[in-house]
Amino acid sequence: MLPASYQLSCAKCNKNYPLETRHWRCPSCGSPFSLRSECPPATDFKSMLDGRERGLWRYRGCLPFSEHPVSLGEGGTPTIRRRERDAELLLKLEYCNPTGSFKDRGASVSITRARAIGVKRVVEDSTGNAGMAASAYSAKAGIRARIYVPSDALPAKKTLIRACRAEVVECSSRKEAAARATSELAEGELYVGHTWDPFYIEGMKTAAFEIYESGFKADSVILPVASGTLLLGLYKGFGELVGMGFSENTPRIYAVQGEGCAPIYEAIHGKLSGDRSSQLADALKIEDPPRKEEILQAIKSTGGDAFTVSDPEIAAATKELYGLGILAEPSSATAYAAYKKNREALGGRIIIPVTGTGLKTIDRLGEIFGQPH
Amino acid sequence: MLPASYQLSCAKCNKNYPLETRHWRCPSCGSPFSLRSECPPATDFKSMLDGRERGLWRYRGCLPFSEHPVSLGEGGTPTIRRRERDAELLLKLEYCNPTGSFKDRGASVSITRARAIGVKRVVEDSTGNAGMAASAYSAKAGIRARIYVPSDALPAKKTLIRACRAEVVECSSRKEAAARATSELAEGELYVGHTWDPFYIEGMKTAAFEIYESGFKADSVILPVASGTLLLGLYKGFGELVGMGFSENTPRIYAVQGEGCAPIYEAIHGKLSGDRSSQLADALKIEDPPRKEEILQAIKSTGGDAFTVSDPEIAAATKELYGLGILAEPSSATAYAAYKKNREALGGRIIIPVTGTGLKTIDRLGEIFGQPH
Repeated sequence: MLPASYQLSCAKCNKNYPLETRHWRCPSCGSPFSLRSECPPATDFKSMLDGRERGLWRYRGCLPFSEHPVSLGEGGTPTIRRRERDAELLLKLEYCNPTGSFKDRGASVSITRARAIGVKRVVEDSTGNAGMAASAYSAKAGIRARIYVPSDALPAKKTLIRACRAEVVECSSRKEAAARATSELAEGELYVGHTWDPFYIEGMKTAAFEIYESGFKADSVILPVASGTLLLGLYKGFGELVGMGFSENTPRIYAVQGEGCAPIYEAIHGKLSGDRSSQLADALKIEDPPRKEEILQAIKSTGGDAFTVSDPEIAAATKELYGLGILAEPSSATAYAAYKKNREALGGRIIIPVTGTGLKTIDRLGEIFGQPH
Repeated sequence: MLPASYQLSCAKCNKNYPLETRHWRCPSCGSPFSLRSECPPATDFKSMLDGRERGLWRYRGCLPFSEHPVSLGEGGTPTIRRRERDAELLLKLEYCNPTGSFKDRGASVSITRARAIGVKRVVEDSTGNAGMAASAYSAKAGIRARIYVPSDALPAKKTLIRACRAEVVECSSRKEAAARATSELAEGELYVGHTWDPFYIEGMKTAAFEIYESGFKADSVILPVASGTLLLGLYKGFGELVGMGFSENTPRIYAVQGEGCAPIYEAIHGKLSGDRSSQLADALKIEDPPRKEEILQAIKSTGGDAFTVSDPEIAAATKELYGLGILAEPSSATAYAAYKKNREALGGRIIIPVTGTGLKTIDRLGEIFGQPH
C-alpha cells in the first residue's frame, strides 16, 4: 500500500510549509494551519487497513508519521446502539480511550509527530482532558510536557496531569492559559495546542473511519464543541471517505455548547440573551476557538446546526446516561441533552460521541445526584 | 457454527444443576459451582469468531446465553508491548473497559444470564470495582441491583454505584458485606457475587482468547488476585485453547497480593510474619476466597507461584506506570510491582493485565505522588 501524501498550508493565505515546521500557526498571517491529505487509491476500504492492528493506527495508511506511532491503545472504542422513537442512536463511547477521553486520538498523532521531528518538550493549554492526553502521550514518548490550565479546572484533572510527570501552570482563565502557552514558548519547545494543531485533527478523523467500518450509515452526528477538533476531524474523515468513493455523503453535523459559552451557536443564531452560565459544561469553555470559521463552514456545508443546553438539561441527561450504565462526564452529556431537546427536528440514524468519562468528575456527581440514598 | 454445550455442577460433589438455577452454591455441600463448557469443534480459531463484533461477544460461540447479551462494549482492550531486559511484556489495559475495570467482562456474562432467566433484582458484594460493574450492567439490562460494600470502600466507587441507580448497603467489613449479601437475599433476587458466580469466570476467559488472537505467545501471566476471577478465567480460557488444539500449553500463572491480605501467598509459602498492612492494595482484600482451592490448583498445575508486595513497592510501581502514560489504580499496579521485584526469576514473554483505572482512585494519587509541584 502506498503511503498517503500530505501538504501543510495556511488555511487563509494558502502558503505551504514543511510537515516538520515548528511554527504553530502561519507566520505570515497568524491563521491556523490546514493539513491536506491524499489517501492512497483503494478499491475497497478493507485493503486500506492494517488488519493486524486494533484502534487508531489500524488506519495508518491515511495518517502522517505513521512509521513509529506513540500509542497507548487509543481508538477502536465501543458503540452502543439504542432505538428511541423515530431515531436509531449510535453512542460511541470515546471515554473508553486510555486516558478517558476522545482527546487521545488527537494526542497520539500530535505527539507522534512531535517525537518524529525531534522535539524534547511540548506545550499545551487545556481545561483538563486535552492536557491529560498530552501528558500521558508525552510520558509514553519520553518527551517533557508543560500544560497551562485555568485555575478552576477540575482538581482531579490537574492531579492526573502531574502524575504523568507534566508541569502544570495555573492561570486565571482559559483565555490566559492559551495566551501564556504560546507567549512563554522557549527555544526548542513545540506548541501542540489542540485548538491549533492540524495533526490533532488527523487523529480525530479516525473516529469517522471506525463508524464507517462498523457499517452504521449515519444521517447526522451531534457532538459537544469547544475548539471543534472532533467536529473537524469527523468532517475531514467522512469527507475522505466520500473522496475515496466509499460513501456518498457526510452526515449533518450538529454542534452542542453549554449556555455559558456558546460562540458557535451565537455565530449562527445571534447572541444569547440574559445572564447565562453553565458549570456542568466546564470542558467546553473556549470563547474564541481559532478554527471557528472552519467549524461554521463544516456545519453549513453539511446542513447542520448548533444547539445550546442548560445546566438542568445537562444534569438530566447525565442522570439518564448513568441509568443506562453509560458513565459520561457532564460536559459530554451535553450532546445527549441536545438530542433529547431537539429530537423532533432530528430523527433518523444519529451518531452521539460520548467524549469523556465521568470517572474524572466524580465530585460533580454529588451535585447532580444529590445526597446518597 | 454449533453453539457450545454447558454443564453446571458442584465443584466438589459433582452434582449437576440446570443453568437456570437460582442457587448460588451447591445446596448439598455449599461448594462453588463449576461451569464446564464444550466449545464447538473448529479447524481454526477465526472460524469460531463472530467477526462483525468487537470485544467480548466476538467469542459468543464459546459463551452461554449469548443470544441477547447485555453489553456496554466490554473487552477488546488495548495492549502495550514493552521490552525490559530479558523480558517482553504485554500490558493488557483492562482499565479501558467501560466502567474502568476487568470486572466488566464478568458482569456482562453474569448479568446477561440473570436477565435471560428472568431475574428482576441482583445482589453483589464488592470493595468497589465489581459493584460498579454489576450496577452499570444491571442498569443497562433494566434490572435492579443491591450492592454490599465495606464502609472503607473508596468514596468515589460508592458514588458511582449509586449514580447507576443501585442500592448501596454499607457494612463494617468486606467479610460482613459478603455474609449479608447472601443472608439478606429475598425471594426472587439472584445473588451474582463475583467470588462465587461461575458465569463471571466465563466472561473473564475471553481475555485469554484476545491475547491468543493478538499472536502473543506468553510464557507467563502475572496478575493481582483477590477472589481470583480473572486468574481462573485466564486459566479456563487458555485451557480451552489447548483443548481445541489451537495452542500447546497454558502460561505459568503468578498471583500477586498485598502484604496486608495474602491468603493465596500464605497457602503456598506459609504465614507472613510481623504486623503487615497494605492500604494501596485496597481492592484485593478478600481473606477467604470461596474458590481458593481452584486458584491454588491453577497456579500449581501451570508451574506458577504467588508473590506479595508492600505499599512502598506498589507506590513505586504506580509512579512508574503513570510515567509511561499508563493510568493504573494502585491495586492493579501490584502486578507490575511484583514483576519488578521478581524479574530475575521470571523473564520471557509475560502478560501483565492492568486491571483497573486510576481515575477512580485519584484521591490516592496525592498520597503516592506527594504535593503538587
